[in-house]
Amino acid sequence: MKNFKKKGFPVSDVRRFIEPGPIVLVSSRWKDETNIMTMGWHMIMEFSPSLIGCYIWDQNHSREMVRKSKECVINIPTYDLIRKVIAIGNSTGGEIDKFKEFKLTPVQGSRVKAPLIKECYANLECRLHDAKLVDKYSLFVWEVVKAHVAVSPRVPRTIHYRGEGRFMVSGREVDYARYFKPEML
Amino acid sequence: MKNFKKKGFPVSDVRRFIEPGPIVLVSSRWKDETNIMTMGWHMIMEFSPSLIGCYIWDQNHSREMVRKSKECVINIPTYDLIRKVIAIGNSTGGEIDKFKEFKLTPVQGSRVKAPLIKECYANLECRLHDAKLVDKYSLFVWEVVKAHVAVSPRVPRTIHYRGEGRFMVSGREVDYARYFKPEML
Repeated sequence: MKNFKKKGFPVSDVRRFIEPGPIVLVSSRWKDETNIMTMGWHMIMEFSPSLIGCYIWDQNHSREMVRKSKECVINIPTYDLIRKVIAIGNSTGGEIDKFKEFKLTPVQGSRVKAPLIKECYANLECRLHDAKLVDKYSLFVWEVVKAHVAVSPRVPRTIHYRGEGRFMVSGREVDYARYFKPEML
Repeated sequence: MKNFKKKGFPVSDVRRFIEPGPIVLVSSRWKDETNIMTMGWHMIMEFSPSLIGCYIWDQNHSREMVRKSKECVINIPTYDLIRKVIAIGNSTGGEIDKFKEFKLTPVQGSRVKAPLIKECYANLECRLHDAKLVDKYSLFVWEVVKAHVAVSPRVPRTIHYRGEGRFMVSGREVDYARYFKPEML
């Protein structure tokens, strides 16, 4: 398990980590209870404000917690955490304390009460921007209000879900900036 | 450039290709005009009906074309097409015919009039499911009504955008199905 040293990161630049489509862990707090869920359905929706749309199913114990608290943390786990990511998805916060059960360390955020997961590469503190699409599409629109990202490596080795228990592990980075029109960068 | 042999694929299973978060090409037709745009902001929203949410900015020439025609094709390019993917993003369909300019082959779909891109690994024919979120969030909710996927390889070598001209190329697949509760698969 890596012990990442982290620093603040511009919230408008979190697309670097979210747009490639990794599995993330959503942590939440409501009253005295904390929880973690595994989530694969999300997208960047705006740079500024920094918006991320997330599908949180009505069968997820986290759903009412984030709906009531209007907060969450989107945490980006790396490949070394894959067994915990699966175990979190296999279980429900209605029955167990996932931080304790999976030996993950809650860290207090600076802008939200939901706990950050220390062992993850990045932690995005989020406030609920729009809940109007929750009933129809289970879609929560979050605003990232504070981001904490590991100082190194520059990009994490993320896991991307393909269904049926199979994941794609992120591969190498290629720099094609020289082929972009400057205004497209 | 690969010459993929394709076959029909269950529309409810397209998460295999979309959920990992690749850059896609959206092709469209409105009246006599066709177009292609490069897109990185999308998410699975439902299995059945098979829904995909896509952010299509109001500065994209494709936006009014897909809004009026209520159709598009989501095409999944592989790494060998990266230079064309960037060139498509650098240019506007208001000025050029992107199929001709970038030597891509339009193929007639079976359920929509928008053309499929032959050179892509997979082609998802889509009908507009919900346009109510377009004005506020530039979010189009599409239903995949027909999917065509290459017979081999089983998964494509996709490209995932990180911003600033940098892409992550999809890495190896790992099978962790044995760690999932059966009902989670």
